[in-house]
Amino acid sequence: MSSDNVQLVVVGSVGLDTIETKFARHEDLLGGSVSYACAAASCFASTGMVGVVGTDFPGEYRDLYARFGIDLEGLMREEGKTFRWSGKYDDDMINRTTLSTELNVFESFAPALPERYRESPFILLGNISPELQLHVLDEAVNPRFVLADTMNLWIDIAREPLDSLISQVTMLALNDEEARLLTGEHHLRKCASMILDMGPEYVVIKKGEHGAMLVSRSGIFLVPAYPVNEVHDPTGAGDCFAGAFMGYLAGCGDVTETNVRRALLHGSVVASFGVEAFSLDRLKSLTKDDIDGRMAELAGMMRVD
Amino acid sequence: MSSDNVQLVVVGSVGLDTIETKFARHEDLLGGSVSYACAAASCFASTGMVGVVGTDFPGEYRDLYARFGIDLEGLMREEGKTFRWSGKYDDDMINRTTLSTELNVFESFAPALPERYRESPFILLGNISPELQLHVLDEAVNPRFVLADTMNLWIDIAREPLDSLISQVTMLALNDEEARLLTGEHHLRKCASMILDMGPEYVVIKKGEHGAMLVSRSGIFLVPAYPVNEVHDPTGAGDCFAGAFMGYLAGCGDVTETNVRRALLHGSVVASFGVEAFSLDRLKSLTKDDIDGRMAELAGMMRVD
Repeated sequence: MSSDNVQLVVVGSVGLDTIETKFARHEDLLGGSVSYACAAASCFASTGMVGVVGTDFPGEYRDLYARFGIDLEGLMREEGKTFRWSGKYDDDMINRTTLSTELNVFESFAPALPERYRESPFILLGNISPELQLHVLDEAVNPRFVLADTMNLWIDIAREPLDSLISQVTMLALNDEEARLLTGEHHLRKCASMILDMGPEYVVIKKGEHGAMLVSRSGIFLVPAYPVNEVHDPTGAGDCFAGAFMGYLAGCGDVTETNVRRALLHGSVVASFGVEAFSLDRLKSLTKDDIDGRMAELAGMMRVD
Repeated sequence: MSSDNVQLVVVGSVGLDTIETKFARHEDLLGGSVSYACAAASCFASTGMVGVVGTDFPGEYRDLYARFGIDLEGLMREEGKTFRWSGKYDDDMINRTTLSTELNVFESFAPALPERYRESPFILLGNISPELQLHVLDEAVNPRFVLADTMNLWIDIAREPLDSLISQVTMLALNDEEARLLTGEHHLRKCASMILDMGPEYVVIKKGEHGAMLVSRSGIFLVPAYPVNEVHDPTGAGDCFAGAFMGYLAGCGDVTETNVRRALLHGSVVASFGVEAFSLDRLKSLTKDDIDGRMAELAGMMRVD
């Protein structure tokens, strides 16, 4: 573990996932938003993980985090079992049914930033309750860029802290249905304008296999999804997207419009690799050449002249 | 009516549509695939319409076609009533329910190319039965570029003539669900490969408000949809897209990869205007400056550096 500060801090859930698709069923896979996001971010920047696991968390998964080069000072280990989620995907590999959720140690998760993480310039607040996201933000010292992810649950049951969070972050990421739920508007361009009025500089509306849309006061960027030949497990795609985006931007250091757009394309590309296998399996073997090759391919798919 | 040959011939349905949305309900609107496609194409190229109307077809609609500059030598007038369609859109302005369909004179539509149209280099076969599309294709003399549109109905009930048609066209356009139905594959990139194996040089998979994907042996182009602030009537969006695409390409004359990609973006932009009002209302007042302005805006939304 390095004594240097990390460039990016990611907070979120660690889970052991049991996932069934038309291809296979796997038990106790390494999952959770912080696992996917940190693995993706670590391709580009030194990344510190803030999360919690139980005493049953396999040593091999901790070793895998370390092999990604993820800084684990912020990963807490508590008495009890690790968060578990089980789900089954429809044949379209998009819609899914949650079969079971066991919060376990995640239920009393009280994320705390280690001293070394507090001055990290980039912070990714993965999808946990807005109260906890606000708590992490309070502990951070003058971060340059804060991205918060959220979900429909918090829009429904924690609107007040969520509004407070949104007013304090640099960028909000959410999917199309969540953007509609948050604003009561149908057209995504209007949703985005309304969200910008709530405070953030940027909003990213994620559309799954259809890509994403970045909206800021300086304009719109249409982020294409790389068309994969086959999805084997879409779990964590949004977390890979956010993680690679923040990792790339933290690696650049400088937050320019061009860097933000390039970072979003890196997010799209890393997510496209992530869905090609279960858990972190594809990310484990991902090389800089793989990423650069697919970035060039994607640029060719966006090129007009 | 000019005695020159037309650059583009479009065949399809003319309809009188009754449409209900959350905004309004309008009766006997000018609709049908050939109306939308010719109106869009006429922004860019001299366009001949092949279709059929009944004796009840309003003179003002024929005048409107003429105001668009559409060549009407191929528009037949038959004893009986014009094709009528009635539908209601859900509040999402995407899903719709057909309330009634009256084929009327369209039931015995036997499209014939006027002599002047036979050497037209560009042909757009709008969504009619593949037997009729094949018949039109037989009458054409060495067309340079033929685009055929189709739909799930023909995939289900006329697979043999459809396969024959697909093997003879330059480009097939269809939506994502139709591509899946045609190939039995889920992933659109695989669907596209399988369709290319059936014969065409290009396949365009349309994804509605999510844009489209062009696939050819030389690569993939991801066509973004322009994000509109409000959809008032999505009817005919796919026909506007195809019409503006073919019109722009016919206007270029030269079928290069760059012209094909630019033509698709023009299709996307003209379709985005089309959905902002009922029927051809927005297209009526559309100017070259409107199109160029939105093209520049869209280019900004695709620009990385």
